[in-house]
Amino acid sequence: MDTAGKVIKCKAAVAWEPNKPLVIEEIEVAPPQANEVRVKIVATSVCHSDLYHLYEGMHKDGFPVVLGHEAAGIVESVGPGVTEFTPGDKVIPLFLAQCRECHFCKNFLIHYRTKGKKIYQFSGTSTFSEYTVVRQINLAKIHPDAPLDKVCLIGCGICTGYGSAVNTAKVEEGSSCAVFGLGAVGLAAVMGCKAAGAKRIIAVDTNPEKFDKAKIFGATDFVNPKDHSKPIHEVLMEMTNGEWTSPWSVWGTQHALHSTVPAWGVSVIVGYTLIQKFSAQPGDLIPGRTWKGSLFGGFKGKDGVAEMVQRYMDKKIMVDEFITHNMGLDQIMEAVDLMRKAQCVRAVLKTSPQ
Amino acid sequence: MDTAGKVIKCKAAVAWEPNKPLVIEEIEVAPPQANEVRVKIVATSVCHSDLYHLYEGMHKDGFPVVLGHEAAGIVESVGPGVTEFTPGDKVIPLFLAQCRECHFCKNFLIHYRTKGKKIYQFSGTSTFSEYTVVRQINLAKIHPDAPLDKVCLIGCGICTGYGSAVNTAKVEEGSSCAVFGLGAVGLAAVMGCKAAGAKRIIAVDTNPEKFDKAKIFGATDFVNPKDHSKPIHEVLMEMTNGEWTSPWSVWGTQHALHSTVPAWGVSVIVGYTLIQKFSAQPGDLIPGRTWKGSLFGGFKGKDGVAEMVQRYMDKKIMVDEFITHNMGLDQIMEAVDLMRKAQCVRAVLKTSPQ
Ligand SMILES: NC(=O)c1ccc[n+]([C@@H]2O[C@H](COP(=O)([O-])OP(=O)(O)OC[C@H]3O[C@@H](n4cnc5c(N)ncnc54)[C@H](O)[C@@H]3O)[C@@H](O)[C@H]2O)c1
Ligand SMILES: NC(=O)c1ccc[n+]([C@@H]2O[C@H](COP(=O)([O-])OP(=O)(O)OC[C@H]3O[C@@H](n4cnc5c(N)ncnc54)[C@H](O)[C@@H]3O)[C@@H](O)[C@H]2O)c1
Ligand SMILES: [Zn+2]
Ligand SMILES: [Zn+2]
Ligand SMILES: [Zn+2]
Ligand SMILES: [Zn+2]
Repeated sequence: MDTAGKVIKCKAAVAWEPNKPLVIEEIEVAPPQANEVRVKIVATSVCHSDLYHLYEGMHKDGFPVVLGHEAAGIVESVGPGVTEFTPGDKVIPLFLAQCRECHFCKNFLIHYRTKGKKIYQFSGTSTFSEYTVVRQINLAKIHPDAPLDKVCLIGCGICTGYGSAVNTAKVEEGSSCAVFGLGAVGLAAVMGCKAAGAKRIIAVDTNPEKFDKAKIFGATDFVNPKDHSKPIHEVLMEMTNGEWTSPWSVWGTQHALHSTVPAWGVSVIVGYTLIQKFSAQPGDLIPGRTWKGSLFGGFKGKDGVAEMVQRYMDKKIMVDEFITHNMGLDQIMEAVDLMRKAQCVRAVLKTSPQ
Repeated sequence: MDTAGKVIKCKAAVAWEPNKPLVIEEIEVAPPQANEVRVKIVATSVCHSDLYHLYEGMHKDGFPVVLGHEAAGIVESVGPGVTEFTPGDKVIPLFLAQCRECHFCKNFLIHYRTKGKKIYQFSGTSTFSEYTVVRQINLAKIHPDAPLDKVCLIGCGICTGYGSAVNTAKVEEGSSCAVFGLGAVGLAAVMGCKAAGAKRIIAVDTNPEKFDKAKIFGATDFVNPKDHSKPIHEVLMEMTNGEWTSPWSVWGTQHALHSTVPAWGVSVIVGYTLIQKFSAQPGDLIPGRTWKGSLFGGFKGKDGVAEMVQRYMDKKIMVDEFITHNMGLDQIMEAVDLMRKAQCVRAVLKTSPQ
């Protein structure tokens, strides 16, 4: 059945308001307008940034909304002016074209309706849906043989973590690194540190069940802050005292900054989880520390995603190893709860069959 | 009269306690021990970091002390094991060998006494004195023709500001920069931005009398935060809206960070003045900002100082232009008060005659 040019009725997980469970609804997805592309989402995964919007962001304006921004799918139809994509192309939606600072709630695009109500788009993507409409600048074409239920993770977590090591921190060969928080983002950072030649990679998580995974990605040391009465940065400083002559990069927030070598440490922040302000003193930075943020791992959206999919096809990066659960879109709240309890790395939800 | 090996009695400005005026006292300077050098200070200047210790640092333990760390002089005698220096060498003391984080008050060395009391050394230098004793690692040999009453400024302010632009921020050709605070450090940062090829350099100070000087060093735009009701970072963002495609570096604290381009701004902090904590949110850094600190402009002490003196001799950097007042050591409180009121750039105090 040719759906081009017509409204598509399909299933999506709708977030009606903050702090409430998502509800699977039938929604109407409008045909793509100029420079837009309608995509059949084949697989999507849950990233902590979705939870941030739902539970922590308190962005009361951005509802109702279809969340989801880590996904892979197939072009269903294209709007006028679209030359880069044709129906059948395998694609990964990109949140980056749009997301600068917390623009999650700004410049809302409305492509969806349910029960007569307009539904906002999230991060330019809204992938917790069988179909979505994105601007062509928010879409990357990928290798035609890529398994969509795996490479969907390249749409956010893997690029973010891996790139934060290789592009943002520019981890040097022989350096020491520590990564706070071993979700997909942190584990991908571990993988990036390893790829960059770090000699020591300390994995830090309050859930010690994450350590086995971290080892697979290349971590050499494991620290659970709950095992120590001292502040975690003191623990790390003691562990690495002898290594302070080598480059030293750390992922995380305030504690991470304080864990770095005063004179040349680099600390990278990627997590929106801690939405409260963090603080530091001039003397924390003046001796020579660098504090950086990283969005989407510093990758250029289209090129970065296509390149990372290619690396996966060439077996140069791991992707399958991040997936701990496979489910259907109907089980989205199960996936969300697993992540809130830090009991998964990535749950992949099959949406439309490939 | 040969003074080598003997205690020298001379004048120094002693800080007896925090928040009290310095007092000129006769002190006794011990002969240099192993790996130490005794230096006749010919000229010293006042840097805001001296005021920080006296008025803002609240380091109650570090008193009595002889402050001062920006100076130039001549080697009087050397202790056992010193091979790099001989009497008569022109030198600049280095605070950096010792100062990591705020180590001002740590590892006190005691070389001075007055009225039977021990006096602490400040920053490994203590230059508000006719004679001082420093470790050989805290001393740089400089060009024999260098005018000491000028190049003393290279001992801190000029290297700090200039280096923070060329070494720390690595300002790129064609970029836009803003510098908050136009003391010697800020003006030297302006000079560094210009040397690095910045096309726009915005000078920010609450005292508009600093703008004429800033222009001499290369500033192109001038902003007094008191002229605006909006937060200063909004003012700068509006001024530079069209330039956000170019590299963009800013000196200062929190406001400086928020003034940078979210996606690639670099913000450098050098000032200890704001001793309170500053804060930021993950979202301030995540879009791609870099927040760095700079100590002594990222220069390696000995090499950096010798090199900057050479650049001055070659007329490649300005030094004389920073000097707004010339006085004697007796007038030190006048110099301190001028700086507290932001009414000077640098006051140079002749100590011993050259
Ligand atoms: N900057 C970006 O472009 C970008 C992109 C994607 C995700 N993110 C952010 O990255 C963060 C991580 O995302 P994720 O999907 O991997 O999350 P996740 O929830 O899967 O992983 C977080 C991990 O941190 C651990 N943790 C929680 N508190 C901790 C503590 N105090 N010390 C040490 N470990 C602790 C948890 O046990 C869990 O393993 C989130 O804040 C997310 O919003 C940023
Ligand atoms: N990191 C280092 O290695 C290092 C070395 C030397 C000095 N410092 C620090 O650098 C800072 C500057 O030193 P300096 O000797 O040039 O000081 P200074 O007192 O001569 O200059 C400070 C300038 O800032 C201006 N100012 C004050 N409040 C302001 C505001 N809110 N907005 C804009 N301008 C404002 C003043 O009018 C003055 O012109 C000090 O904090 C000092 O401790 C750091
Ligand atoms: Zn994400
Ligand atoms: Zn938002
Ligand atoms: Zn100084
Ligand atoms: Zn101190």
